[in-house]
Amino acid sequence: MRRNKSKEIPAAAAHRLPRYYRYLTELVKNERYRISSGELSKIMNVTASQIRQDLNCFGGFGQQGYGYNTEILRSGISRILGVEREFTAVIAGTGNLGKTLAKSGMFARRGVVLKALFDIDPAVIDSEAGGFVVMDIKEAADYCRDNKIDIAVLTLPKDETNAVANILAEAGVKGFWNFSNMELEIKTDKPGIKVQNMHMGDSLMRLCFDLNN
Amino acid sequence: MRRNKSKEIPAAAAHRLPRYYRYLTELVKNERYRISSGELSKIMNVTASQIRQDLNCFGGFGQQGYGYNTEILRSGISRILGVEREFTAVIAGTGNLGKTLAKSGMFARRGVVLKALFDIDPAVIDSEAGGFVVMDIKEAADYCRDNKIDIAVLTLPKDETNAVANILAEAGVKGFWNFSNMELEIKTDKPGIKVQNMHMGDSLMRLCFDLNN
Repeated sequence: MRRNKSKEIPAAAAHRLPRYYRYLTELVKNERYRISSGELSKIMNVTASQIRQDLNCFGGFGQQGYGYNTEILRSGISRILGVEREFTAVIAGTGNLGKTLAKSGMFARRGVVLKALFDIDPAVIDSEAGGFVVMDIKEAADYCRDNKIDIAVLTLPKDETNAVANILAEAGVKGFWNFSNMELEIKTDKPGIKVQNMHMGDSLMRLCFDLNN
Repeated sequence: MRRNKSKEIPAAAAHRLPRYYRYLTELVKNERYRISSGELSKIMNVTASQIRQDLNCFGGFGQQGYGYNTEILRSGISRILGVEREFTAVIAGTGNLGKTLAKSGMFARRGVVLKALFDIDPAVIDSEAGGFVVMDIKEAADYCRDNKIDIAVLTLPKDETNAVANILAEAGVKGFWNFSNMELEIKTDKPGIKVQNMHMGDSLMRLCFDLNN
């Protein structure tokens, strides 16, 4: 991979990275080891020139007249995405959604190692979910500190979310995957905190808006 | 509401609508019936001038020196979002995720009436989930046509998703809330098809990318 480390990946291109990764994974699975930017552009529904620009800024994996080697491209993109770094995650909140995520294979498929599940509810603590014994949320901070956990998945009730997120941020968790349908307010002065929101309710409302207008 | 019907709502403002709705719902719940654009801007983390611009283009709910009446504003926005129209929805795919959504209260809170659940798997058909008896996916097209269903929630296996979406689109379903982590290809020539994607896996990968870069 000839990626120039000092070259910043523009936000829009970075945003497309997971889609590239998905399509390339599919192609490799189907034993398609070579693809032109034209074909890739058709599958991705992005212009061919956009594809060339994007992949060039990820490091230029293409070869004139040959196109792209899907395996090399996929592996390069997976390195940029951190798939090979094996980030570790815990789920905080083991209601239906937390359990569904734990059982889904969502993490393993993207190189994220799910390490533990936590909950507040005594009725749920010590029960089994997705191959894990659910732990008490009170132990989460120590666990994350001791195990250098990278990501906390927040599937807690709204009222608990910010408090737990702040405790985990202090314990060294940097990445928050927030399903709470509210904005997080993380007040730590630790650097490098990243949040991705999965505002499902907002997405449903956008669909209604589109249907209504 | 003085909304000028001929005035198009810009995409970015429309994108913020569900967030306005969420915050206003919270404010009304907490019995805050009046708010200045300055306060609203703090809560929303958007500039006050942006707030004024947005709300002006939704129909101008503010009053100089008074601020906004949160109830009137919420109700105006809910009308634009179609909350009061009571869109109807079915869930196609009653695995863990489909069941979780059915049980979540997600739909009712946003004025969407969940009407039926469907699945492909004979082991799941006729079982109970979220207060519904799961129906055979083969009956979904007739059901949606007869009941004028607006929205199909797609929580099916990847391989089934496009086929089912196309059948339901032919049956008159206009809105697709797609959880399949792939792009839909709906080939109907019926107009007005709208899709909202919930690409959870992409969101997780973006978080990893942000942590990695």
